[in-house]
Amino acid sequence: MLGLSHFVNSEALTIVANTGDDFDYLGLRVCPDIDTLVYTLSGLDNPDTGWGRAGESGSFMEAIEAFGEDTWFFLGDKDLAMHVARTRRLAAGERLSSITRDVCRRLGVAARILPMSDDPVSTVVETIESRLPFQHYFVRDRCQPVVRRFEYDGAETAAASAELLDALAVEGLRAVIVAPSNPFVSIDPILAVPGIRGALRMCRAPVVAVTPIVGGDSIKGPTAKMMRELDVEVSPVAIALHYEDFVDGFVLDTADAELTSRVKALGIDALTTNTMMDSLDDRVMLARDVLEFCDQIPRPSGGGRASR
Amino acid sequence: MLGLSHFVNSEALTIVANTGDDFDYLGLRVCPDIDTLVYTLSGLDNPDTGWGRAGESGSFMEAIEAFGEDTWFFLGDKDLAMHVARTRRLAAGERLSSITRDVCRRLGVAARILPMSDDPVSTVVETIESRLPFQHYFVRDRCQPVVRRFEYDGAETAAASAELLDALAVEGLRAVIVAPSNPFVSIDPILAVPGIRGALRMCRAPVVAVTPIVGGDSIKGPTAKMMRELDVEVSPVAIALHYEDFVDGFVLDTADAELTSRVKALGIDALTTNTMMDSLDDRVMLARDVLEFCDQIPRPSGGGRASR
Repeated sequence: MLGLSHFVNSEALTIVANTGDDFDYLGLRVCPDIDTLVYTLSGLDNPDTGWGRAGESGSFMEAIEAFGEDTWFFLGDKDLAMHVARTRRLAAGERLSSITRDVCRRLGVAARILPMSDDPVSTVVETIESRLPFQHYFVRDRCQPVVRRFEYDGAETAAASAELLDALAVEGLRAVIVAPSNPFVSIDPILAVPGIRGALRMCRAPVVAVTPIVGGDSIKGPTAKMMRELDVEVSPVAIALHYEDFVDGFVLDTADAELTSRVKALGIDALTTNTMMDSLDDRVMLARDVLEFCDQIPRPSGGGRASR
Repeated sequence: MLGLSHFVNSEALTIVANTGDDFDYLGLRVCPDIDTLVYTLSGLDNPDTGWGRAGESGSFMEAIEAFGEDTWFFLGDKDLAMHVARTRRLAAGERLSSITRDVCRRLGVAARILPMSDDPVSTVVETIESRLPFQHYFVRDRCQPVVRRFEYDGAETAAASAELLDALAVEGLRAVIVAPSNPFVSIDPILAVPGIRGALRMCRAPVVAVTPIVGGDSIKGPTAKMMRELDVEVSPVAIALHYEDFVDGFVLDTADAELTSRVKALGIDALTTNTMMDSLDDRVMLARDVLEFCDQIPRPSGGGRASR
């Protein structure tokens, strides 16, 4: 995403944010996925942590401990401004999409960040012990509980972002790229909102996913751990299969070159390249490779993909 | 109040907080009077400013400016914890009294701080130009507009704190002291809540007010400016007259000794002493003088004061 923003004209880039991570914490509406996108694209991010803002301080968090409030999710003093401003505006009746657009404008983010829906959707992790809201599983319990399945509370009745559906239908859309993300907790929440999966199937631009699994493990986060716990093969092939109904192409890492034929056997075009993003250069090169791959994929004829 | 807390057993001290100053700011419920009381009595206060906490930082406030939010009322990073915790608890349905009691317990405040009411009351300053919520007048506009009158929105339908009414009726109450505060925006909002003025009139303990006007000027704040704008004599006598229906005694500063007879002519006992509180010693001495004065005032026979 950062690579793409450096490679293509940022104004032409639309990023769909997963809002299944969103939760109420200390009475504030926290949207971790939107926040990370905004901070990364505005250059306010903390590259050392991968979340939050650079040069952050923790005076608020230290003080609120004395009030007996939760402190398991760290909110830096500067980061707090995002949550307080958003919470105030949501309470005043503004849509999350509209707030996000305005925040991007104010912080100088040229790309368009679209929440998948303005209605609340909550990813719930069903572990062998209990049902946990996503951030409780991910941050508070550090992904330690063994997962059984995932639910997306509210998704069934949520309205898909109209801007997102329009973006998928727009004439001249070059490509849809599914980032190397966790399929269960980052991509599936988006796909769970009625209309989005169908719009991806019907989309006339090539849809390409990039593997989050390389050499039998996650690039980052608990994807591989979850796949093991769900008894799914920890392999890019399983990811490709997961998205099989709507992707035209799939990008594997060179470390998994021998799996290319198995992806192709699913009827999905495959690209093998370096998907590991250590530096900004890596990011820009992967973005270039993926876009070139997209450009080579023959346009699916109307509804062709939908019939899979 | 700080003097009293050093002079009497803190557990025996009940302080009534004016909540007419309270307002919603950045979506947070801010209660400046309660906060100053809590910070002062817990030792977290900033003696240099008279508000907020010591050793405060402003990262949040600096960050939220970029979001286009209001910044005219400074909320320090630590102070923010109070407002966030309170707002969360109010939204969860807890009473302001109950939250305040718990916060006092957590921060080690032994005295009891009672909001005058759990229902919202808003002091409105009617200036020659417009109607301003109190903090807009006081902080944003730095008391510059010329005042005409004051209103206490919501007071008519607010329920007086039951704990406060009980405290005024309790057997063995030693004294009720009206602090050297601004009568219009600090004391009148409390008196505007139905039942409180009547309970003060009926109270069997002596009720004594301390002058906020010394030598023709306010000890601090805009009291004298307001009195001039309202065409009221800037004098302790005017303050005594303001409270005439419920006070038994009035404390003037030695600088105004010549006005003692005018206060007594109102049928109010008078004490002349040093009321200027520069040091903690000054505070403790004033508290001692005022309490001794209270102890010498004959108990009003049942309902005697109410008949004035």
